[in-house]
Amino acid sequence: QYSDKVVDHYTNPRNTGVIKNPDGEGTVGNPVCGDIMTIYIKVDDDNKLSDVKFSTFGCGAAIATSSMITEMAIGMDVDEAYHITRNDVADELDGLPPIKLHCSNLAADALQAAIENYREKK
Amino acid sequence: QYSDKVVDHYTNPRNTGVIKNPDGEGTVGNPVCGDIMTIYIKVDDDNKLSDVKFSTFGCGAAIATSSMITEMAIGMDVDEAYHITRNDVADELDGLPPIKLHCSNLAADALQAAIENYREKK
Ligand code: FES
Repeated sequence: QYSDKVVDHYTNPRNTGVIKNPDGEGTVGNPVCGDIMTIYIKVDDDNKLSDVKFSTFGCGAAIATSSMITEMAIGMDVDEAYHITRNDVADELDGLPPIKLHCSNLAADALQAAIENYREKK
Repeated sequence: QYSDKVVDHYTNPRNTGVIKNPDGEGTVGNPVCGDIMTIYIKVDDDNKLSDVKFSTFGCGAAIATSSMITEMAIGMDVDEAYHITRNDVADELDGLPPIKLHCSNLAADALQAAIENYREKK
């Protein structure tokens, strides 16, 4: 049911936890299951994401997509990372079961919310 | 939102994984979110549960309830463990958010399915 990459990122998630004094922070909720996702970002002087971390109680699909999006986003220009879509992340994971696509919204939406928060603070 | 016990069992889940050659095995699915839970049991000569393990891709609430039910069930008589309800587990965790109650069904239902599987095999 789940691709090898999804299982790998779920059993071995990258970049979990909290960034203290982040440059931006975004929290979004999944109305279907009530799960919540927070993403924290650090931005360097070149407008690149130097660190991205996530924290969630969500399911395996939510964990795998957030883990993957942090890997995709670190080192990227902030304005480029803002345009990572849920489909980009699902593709990078070799797909997700259809019933789990709503879970994968959390990662992309929380990253966008964190970048918006960073822009507001600037 | 989540009790300290839920956070503890989620961040530090007990008895995760697979039992090879289990005496019983039960898998159930959550139709709301599509998550799946499997529980494995070992039964000793006194009809007591000597080992219980769980495996899931489900959310934090599913992980916390399964972790808790394995702790409650190990050492119990099989026929007694069969009557552990989702409410027993939620109470033991000092409650769950209402939207997460459907997630907590997985643990109790999978344990019952594993015990039924054990009874059939006997
Ligand atoms: S949302 Fe699927 S088990 Fe909780």
